[in-house]
Amino acid sequence: MTATLYGLGVGPGDPELITLKALRILREVPVLAWPAPLEGDSMARAIAEPHLDGHHIEVPIRMPMEIARFPAQQVYDRAAEEIGEHLAAGRDVAVLCEGDPFFYGSFMYLFGRMAERFDVEVVPGVSSLMATAAATGAPLAARNDVLTVLPAPLPEEELIERLKTVEAAAVIKVGRHLPKLRRALSAAGLLDNARYIAHATQDKQVVTDLSDLDDEKAPYFSMVLVHRRGEAWR
Amino acid sequence: MTATLYGLGVGPGDPELITLKALRILREVPVLAWPAPLEGDSMARAIAEPHLDGHHIEVPIRMPMEIARFPAQQVYDRAAEEIGEHLAAGRDVAVLCEGDPFFYGSFMYLFGRMAERFDVEVVPGVSSLMATAAATGAPLAARNDVLTVLPAPLPEEELIERLKTVEAAAVIKVGRHLPKLRRALSAAGLLDNARYIAHATQDKQVVTDLSDLDDEKAPYFSMVLVHRRGEAWR
Repeated sequence: MTATLYGLGVGPGDPELITLKALRILREVPVLAWPAPLEGDSMARAIAEPHLDGHHIEVPIRMPMEIARFPAQQVYDRAAEEIGEHLAAGRDVAVLCEGDPFFYGSFMYLFGRMAERFDVEVVPGVSSLMATAAATGAPLAARNDVLTVLPAPLPEEELIERLKTVEAAAVIKVGRHLPKLRRALSAAGLLDNARYIAHATQDKQVVTDLSDLDDEKAPYFSMVLVHRRGEAWR
Repeated sequence: MTATLYGLGVGPGDPELITLKALRILREVPVLAWPAPLEGDSMARAIAEPHLDGHHIEVPIRMPMEIARFPAQQVYDRAAEEIGEHLAAGRDVAVLCEGDPFFYGSFMYLFGRMAERFDVEVVPGVSSLMATAAATGAPLAARNDVLTVLPAPLPEEELIERLKTVEAAAVIKVGRHLPKLRRALSAAGLLDNARYIAHATQDKQVVTDLSDLDDEKAPYFSMVLVHRRGEAWR
């Protein structure tokens, strides 16, 4: 008897953006694991919450949201061990993943530790990338434009160099890197082409031109979309 | 009384990968529009089919799958007119979109024609990009690697130049551009790092190293994923 580890994409925030498949598996498995900050609530669990009926064993994976050096080896080692014990005992485990498990999600660190020893199935979810485009009311890229996904933690000089040649870009993991990102977009001549989105598809969603945003810090779950060519899909 | 035009992401192929929200709207609206080739079945409609109950007015948008010059203005002009008549009469219309509406989907051409005159809501879906990563069993990009989405119709020289500097890449719209893409990947030294995926999440799904694929032509719904750094997420 072999149990399965599911990387379960639960979508970008609105609980109605979970898939039928993820919902079925959520209801079938006996064990849920979910990432969370050191203190406070898990966004992935909050997305799934309206669909939970209280039958699960739950395994929190608590981690600082923004740390200098990913991955925090010990936390993932310990989580892999605990999840592995459930699997070895024949209990399927679903790891709840905000958005999609394989789009820059922390699930990759569990996957790297467990995929050779256990059956793993990744259930793709609606990514924050697509939710963010829907929120702005603009396609991610027009026609045959190249779309570049840039993690904001990259060094400023690399951001500038990459931004200088992008056609369409999505900058992810904005968080405390917002001032650096502003400078990089200015240097690349793209500040006025940048839209800022936080908490896409949730009640607290924010959509604005980046140049109209006064804040010096963004939530971890925020993104900046850029189109060099403006509304080229028209 | 104002009707709404929905861009409805129905997911990458497996009908179970539709969201609860898309399913609700699908059941509520009186009119469905869907893209299809000039002859033959609509993939978007096939994905939605298990969820249909026969109550819809249907508006096919028939288009050659691969044409040299997008958009085919007349087809979209005519579709926008027909859909606009339903909206003006107070009937909500859902345009079925494979994957996600705003990830290189043809919905952008209707959106560009209709967004200023009508209420439009885009419902994000599970994209083929995420479904393809799940099918290969590898994250799209590791840690803070940059992810580049490259449309295969780009000129060979541009593909080579872009590929030379990518860290992780997803090449979309492969289709008849497969031989050119092979040459470009070879020139960039990445052919052995490329995985080929067709029809992700469907029964006929194919996943293989690109170097093991003998075909000279790929389906339109195929993709090639590249990681310069190999399994950097481990």
